Amino acid sequence: MRETELVALIRKLTTRAPSQPQIIQSIGDDCAILRPRPNEDLVFTTDFVIEGRHFTLDTHKPADIGYKALGRSLSDLAAMGSEPLFCLVSLAVPAAFAPRWIQNFYRGLLALAAYYKITVAGGDLARFDKVVADVICCGRVPRGKAILRSGARPGDRIFVTGQLGGSAHGFRTRTGAAWRGHLHPEPRIPAGMALRKLGVRAGMDLSDGLALDLYRLCLESKVSAEIGSNLPIAPGATEDEALHGGEDYELLFTAPPQLTIPPRIAKVSVTGIGRITRGKPGTIRYGGRILPPKGFDHFT
Amino acid sequence: MRETELVALIRKLTTRAPSQPQIIQSIGDDCAILRPRPNEDLVFTTDFVIEGRHFTLDTHKPADIGYKALGRSLSDLAAMGSEPLFCLVSLAVPAAFAPRWIQNFYRGLLALAAYYKITVAGGDLARFDKVVADVICCGRVPRGKAILRSGARPGDRIFVTGQLGGSAHGFRTRTGAAWRGHLHPEPRIPAGMALRKLGVRAGMDLSDGLALDLYRLCLESKVSAEIGSNLPIAPGATEDEALHGGEDYELLFTAPPQLTIPPRIAKVSVTGIGRITRGKPGTIRYGGRILPPKGFDHFT
Repeated sequence: MRETELVALIRKLTTRAPSQPQIIQSIGDDCAILRPRPNEDLVFTTDFVIEGRHFTLDTHKPADIGYKALGRSLSDLAAMGSEPLFCLVSLAVPAAFAPRWIQNFYRGLLALAAYYKITVAGGDLARFDKVVADVICCGRVPRGKAILRSGARPGDRIFVTGQLGGSAHGFRTRTGAAWRGHLHPEPRIPAGMALRKLGVRAGMDLSDGLALDLYRLCLESKVSAEIGSNLPIAPGATEDEALHGGEDYELLFTAPPQLTIPPRIAKVSVTGIGRITRGKPGTIRYGGRILPPKGFDHFT
Repeated sequence: MRETELVALIRKLTTRAPSQPQIIQSIGDDCAILRPRPNEDLVFTTDFVIEGRHFTLDTHKPADIGYKALGRSLSDLAAMGSEPLFCLVSLAVPAAFAPRWIQNFYRGLLALAAYYKITVAGGDLARFDKVVADVICCGRVPRGKAILRSGARPGDRIFVTGQLGGSAHGFRTRTGAAWRGHLHPEPRIPAGMALRKLGVRAGMDLSDGLALDLYRLCLESKVSAEIGSNLPIAPGATEDEALHGGEDYELLFTAPPQLTIPPRIAKVSVTGIGRITRGKPGTIRYGGRILPPKGFDHFT
């Protein structure tokens, strides 16, 4: 199959994705074109999904990989409290994967794009001996209102959405609801937007485990943190998975004491797990002991 | 070396890149944040640079690969007549490449970023057994003024900047100026902006060879084309390399007869090579014969 035909096929598939009015040019030109609206900031993120690192072809169907490729980037948009606008999809696959595998990859990706009303505005396609996807997402947020890692202050309470460790538990057991949750985590887009509207200004998503991600948030905010024993551990998950397991894609955020945070937001539970303190930036105390920033690390 | 340390290193390196005032948050958070200005459109592109497909570790030093990774995306921004703003860099490398190889990759990329005043606003880093880079670039253009593939009309004259086939010639000979040109093509950013200011509204960059790229332009514009024997063939290159060789990264554009196109623009020569005609979309005549849309194709 020729590349030109493949690109035409992908273009045909992606016309089924929602068409955001701000995207005035998408697949078919050298660049996608976005017309910004007044008084909004735009946020951008990009995430790799790589064979042997983030999935294997044995355990993940092509549609699962397409879902995951977009889902990882969407979780970053959720972390900022932003509303998704468009994505660009870079995909490298073995030649024998054209066209069927590619169609199924897009089927998974486009189902998620349709749900969150995201235009697939372009990307790149290459031949390679392994599957590598890199999905870039753009979202919008009212000017100056993005939720930042650097926004936490001493005295803030610390919260997480949903439950922790479920994805690591699913990855370990490969069965049941935990495995399905690992394959198809729900990006917390509505919760992120609702928290931003409530006035939350500090947070991030949990992609590499609570211990490592809270450490990163504390470093950016130049604060310490204390968390308690009331972690919302997912059913079946261990305490270690809840603290250090990756890919939960829940939101971690902080709020000043005067801001009331409801126990549920956008149909997701919210649990207070501790508070931000003064101290050496990045130091986390858990049940009185120092918690090491251990989590998923690509390079160790 | 731990991923957190590597990310800190990359962050330190990228602070040497220019800081565009519209980028209000870059590396260190889940997303980069851009504050748009009134009356401008934003353009976005992404391009893979993959070991064994776009380079080999034998022939390309890490700095060459960093240069190429950004340069390919910049050429797309040039094609739209846009001014570069920022890039996101996704990079996958073997663990043993940390940190030295990664530093040198960024050295090449940052030299080009500095020249065109581009902020490196974020990206992703992953471990993999081969080198894969995906660079996303964003540029700005006055509202409604982007140069598009779909803008060519029958009667328009067809032009190219610079010379054709030099990159393929350099790749074949691996010596001298042609090889240096292959390694470090100059993205035609100033020429693209100058053409847009002149009133050019149709064009693209030449990444896969004149024959295939002109075919693509004609398809998007639903027109045919006739080109002549006066192609600006690069010294040493063959006619076949000028027609079908990839990676010249020159600009291909069209202009209505009443628009005067100077013989040089932004220090680059400009050559009229033919005209747009009515006819079956995508049909190219070269010296009276049909020119097949043959060029670099990843999937054949």
